[in-house]
Amino acid sequence: MTYCVAMSLDAGMIFASDSRTNAGVDQIARFSKMKLFVRDGDRVIVTLSSGNLSITQNALNVLDQRARAGDSELNLWNAQSMFDVARLLGDSLREVKTRDGPYMLQNNIDASGNFLIGGQIRGEQHRLFNVYGEGNFIEASPDTCYFQIGESKYGKPVIDRVVTRSTSLLDATKCTIVSFDSTMRSNISVGLPIDLIVYEADSLTIKLHKRIEESDTYFQMVHREWGEGLRRVFQQLPDPDWT
Amino acid sequence: MTYCVAMSLDAGMIFASDSRTNAGVDQIARFSKMKLFVRDGDRVIVTLSSGNLSITQNALNVLDQRARAGDSELNLWNAQSMFDVARLLGDSLREVKTRDGPYMLQNNIDASGNFLIGGQIRGEQHRLFNVYGEGNFIEASPDTCYFQIGESKYGKPVIDRVVTRSTSLLDATKCTIVSFDSTMRSNISVGLPIDLIVYEADSLTIKLHKRIEESDTYFQMVHREWGEGLRRVFQQLPDPDWT
Repeated sequence: MTYCVAMSLDAGMIFASDSRTNAGVDQIARFSKMKLFVRDGDRVIVTLSSGNLSITQNALNVLDQRARAGDSELNLWNAQSMFDVARLLGDSLREVKTRDGPYMLQNNIDASGNFLIGGQIRGEQHRLFNVYGEGNFIEASPDTCYFQIGESKYGKPVIDRVVTRSTSLLDATKCTIVSFDSTMRSNISVGLPIDLIVYEADSLTIKLHKRIEESDTYFQMVHREWGEGLRRVFQQLPDPDWT
Repeated sequence: MTYCVAMSLDAGMIFASDSRTNAGVDQIARFSKMKLFVRDGDRVIVTLSSGNLSITQNALNVLDQRARAGDSELNLWNAQSMFDVARLLGDSLREVKTRDGPYMLQNNIDASGNFLIGGQIRGEQHRLFNVYGEGNFIEASPDTCYFQIGESKYGKPVIDRVVTRSTSLLDATKCTIVSFDSTMRSNISVGLPIDLIVYEADSLTIKLHKRIEESDTYFQMVHREWGEGLRRVFQQLPDPDWT
């Protein structure tokens, strides 16, 4: 499985993904689920993906290859809005599923693929989209400023309690780490390293791009202190008066 | 949906279930998912259920009706082990699914049903089983002393961090409340009231049977203090050193 989360805040954006893929428990591998398309000063586009790896990789390759062709048609590098970019990704996903889906179905292989895609193109605000497996998509809003894909449930409560549109990038980064820690604590199919991007609004360049490995001392500290903190809060809760 | 959790600890057992059922968002109702079969001094048996309500209710009715018949065949009231009781429940579930399943399938209605069943029969230890939709089942062990069914993921991280086989009944009760609070905070399909049973090992009677409504001051306090405590722990976590 996979866990990816992206947040669109007043201060900027956070993107994070785990790196574990599995086709059965005896075939576990490491693949980054994050892809960047960056031209400093012009556009920063980040994708996170979940689902069948061949479907999502191929969809991104179609998107990328078409953009490299550099022709006059709408593509990733000449689009003037993130809305158009999300549509291009949806189209690429549909194309790959149309091509490969029927053959996969013959062996009951799940051909699903989901994307989070976000970033900023010069001339508009930063924006975040959730592209569903069918290629249609929704955009994050002030009321719902984050999206998750993959194994999203374990790590959702802490985000729901901490993150709003006005949360700082630093707090949102911390919360993202805690959310991944909670997920990995309870689900072995999500694993390190975590790919993390922090994007500052209107900067049109990546502020921080980090791969968090097991040896990362900050991650180890969060893992330890969050666990201890939770147990401390738990112990401080009064006992039920009805027992 | 549903959220149910049961724990089998050295000190006894905890059973808890929410009470929300829905067949589409416009048909939400309140049904207890907990059923008790108690003869003080002889046996305490508790079931929790998730899945299609007609399937799980019918399976319990079959189990109950057969026991009431009071014949000499093995039933709920004359079984000498919880293992036999779990098998009886699995059989009842299979019977109902065999009868109703094909008709439900014609309209693509999900005929799944899952149970947690546990308790104690005089002469053996207290035991806990997870009965799958196919009627087969597993038993809790010292390594894995709790089971969840339904919307289990949101409320799992806190149990994983707090509960072991040696946890006290009071702490396990508190943890159960927190686990429900986390689930209901992030998933609207799980709702109050919570039915809660606390069973003390070898007592062969129910120590505490409580329905926790929205007006419960202890639940309100846990909801508030857990949320505030989490945010406090979060704020106390040091900022990442790599930003």
